[in-house]
Amino acid sequence: MDRLRATYRVRAGAGEIERRAEALAVEQSVEMPPGAVRDARVADEVIGRVEEVAADGDGHFRVTLGLALETTGFEAGQLMNMLFGNCSLQPEVELVDVDLPEPALARFGGPRFGIVGLRALAGAEHRPLTCSALKPQGSSPEALAALAGALAAGGIDLIKDDHGLADQAAAPFARRVEAVQRAIDAANRAGGGRCVYAPSLTGGPRRLHEQLRIAREAGVGMLMLAPMVSGLGALQELAEEAGLPILAHPALGGAARIAPPALIGKLFRLAGADAVIYPNHGGRFSYGPHTCRAIAGAAREPWGPLRAALPVPAGGMTPQRVEEMVDFYGRDVMLLIGGALLEADDPTAAARDFVRRVHTLGEAR
Amino acid sequence: MDRLRATYRVRAGAGEIERRAEALAVEQSVEMPPGAVRDARVADEVIGRVEEVAADGDGHFRVTLGLALETTGFEAGQLMNMLFGNCSLQPEVELVDVDLPEPALARFGGPRFGIVGLRALAGAEHRPLTCSALKPQGSSPEALAALAGALAAGGIDLIKDDHGLADQAAAPFARRVEAVQRAIDAANRAGGGRCVYAPSLTGGPRRLHEQLRIAREAGVGMLMLAPMVSGLGALQELAEEAGLPILAHPALGGAARIAPPALIGKLFRLAGADAVIYPNHGGRFSYGPHTCRAIAGAAREPWGPLRAALPVPAGGMTPQRVEEMVDFYGRDVMLLIGGALLEADDPTAAARDFVRRVHTLGEAR
Repeated sequence: MDRLRATYRVRAGAGEIERRAEALAVEQSVEMPPGAVRDARVADEVIGRVEEVAADGDGHFRVTLGLALETTGFEAGQLMNMLFGNCSLQPEVELVDVDLPEPALARFGGPRFGIVGLRALAGAEHRPLTCSALKPQGSSPEALAALAGALAAGGIDLIKDDHGLADQAAAPFARRVEAVQRAIDAANRAGGGRCVYAPSLTGGPRRLHEQLRIAREAGVGMLMLAPMVSGLGALQELAEEAGLPILAHPALGGAARIAPPALIGKLFRLAGADAVIYPNHGGRFSYGPHTCRAIAGAAREPWGPLRAALPVPAGGMTPQRVEEMVDFYGRDVMLLIGGALLEADDPTAAARDFVRRVHTLGEAR
Repeated sequence: MDRLRATYRVRAGAGEIERRAEALAVEQSVEMPPGAVRDARVADEVIGRVEEVAADGDGHFRVTLGLALETTGFEAGQLMNMLFGNCSLQPEVELVDVDLPEPALARFGGPRFGIVGLRALAGAEHRPLTCSALKPQGSSPEALAALAGALAAGGIDLIKDDHGLADQAAAPFARRVEAVQRAIDAANRAGGGRCVYAPSLTGGPRRLHEQLRIAREAGVGMLMLAPMVSGLGALQELAEEAGLPILAHPALGGAARIAPPALIGKLFRLAGADAVIYPNHGGRFSYGPHTCRAIAGAAREPWGPLRAALPVPAGGMTPQRVEEMVDFYGRDVMLLIGGALLEADDPTAAARDFVRRVHTLGEAR
């Protein structure tokens, strides 16, 4: 129970890999010459250990370290620091996986609502959920609210802020969130729907807290956060304190050197994300089907006591892809279509078509 | 004044680069098909613009975008989001530089103390400053305090927490910070020194605020933060609110796809760092002399109204390198030596030797 396992892919020659792995174990723990560690407990229990080294293709090795759990303080930002803080600056090192003993999982917390909670919120037991986004940034609160109302009238389950919306002069957070929530409430009353709004929280500690207060007062049903911009620690605290489900956005996730399933599927989930957005294959981003399936797997597979997080593949998706995406991911998924609905002359009709496709599939299977 | 310039290095064929650059401008702004943007103001003023495309070596181009400043809300986390949020997920894109018009610089804030303020704090007008680190993580507060006292007695200007120290069971933040500050105060009284302590703040909003309160009550003279772990927004707010100089640590900076001078030299400074740690050449990390010089340059060169930030090259440095490092960086630098002092049988004597070398050089030139 006292160590987590962090797996790295390291570029190194066969003659140097043992030494390189030992150096990595030191870098990601005491960060000083081990011979100079005079405290026997620290030497025994805190210095990172090389647990496994295996060849992993031409000139590369897979190195598994045992890192002392106590060094994380069970705080998600510090976990990230111990996993990849310094070695992120060493281009020959990639973080590919992380595993924590079960008691540690519970201490980090994980999703508070999870797939089951999100399904209850949407009133959808079996079918995939639907999601769209408010765009473009630069629009007035009134314009964004009108769009939200139109999408809600089309039957979308979740409407989220575009990740580019923050607290900007064109649509200050408070005015935007109040106006959008009012428009969605009105559409729900008119159509008997239960559309939920997730505004994007941004900024440092003071701004985040203030935005959380405003969002709660406005009565939003969910929150969005980009954990790599705001810090995994902010995600963890939001999950502890907000009492609302959280949608994680991958901005700045630049997962080139952290394997996307480890970052988006595992670490975001561990820190409390109930749903995780990621770039689906065949869109504007480069992840392939294999990576996408692995992210979805990491987000929703059984993982000790942690609730499952809902995968949200996105990034240039269209209603025409609904059937293929549900074939690929199954029904425990939220399909996010933004721009393609906004391009339509009638966003409500476009949303309704998207929703109809999803509901039909959800019932059929 | 209404746009910032963000420069990217993009891998693309010559036949597709114009289209790719346009797509990048959309991705980093409205993130929807431009044809579907119906608000004329948004189309004119908010959609990103391609300002320049130039060949940049085999199969690569340098693309400069003009991004609307209003989209940042003048919040540092959101600035990062607009610069590299989504395109961090596109491996063919690197962020290489950023420039903001002068009035925008002042709105982000920059260092509140800067090199001049740090020199005043240390009582050192011309010479390089000296810094060491408290290690290893896992040690008790008493052990870390004893080490701090020993280093302070040796005449070190700044003693910082190892970046692996957080709020952990072996040395909880409050007990550690109080004990270390007391030990440094005692050493200062005994030896007439003015050594300053910079504890590392970690965690989400609540934990950060609580740690700031504890650090202030303990009377620390500086703070350390890893902005890529905690969020650039947290750095910006700390600079606004703490009333203490801030040392930025590059953990998770994984600058492989953000040019280190842009990230560590410019963005950390812009968000308020008074001093910036980075891996010096010839140590445990891979930055070369050219990169290191560029980071130091970006941190301390004139930049509109912003104060200069102090470069802190580190990562496996030794007292034997003092002369060479001062030759390389000049005197506006803080030399950080951690492990090499801790390896010595007598850390006070080792610190004194390091300090003597620096002071001698500082006076000689």
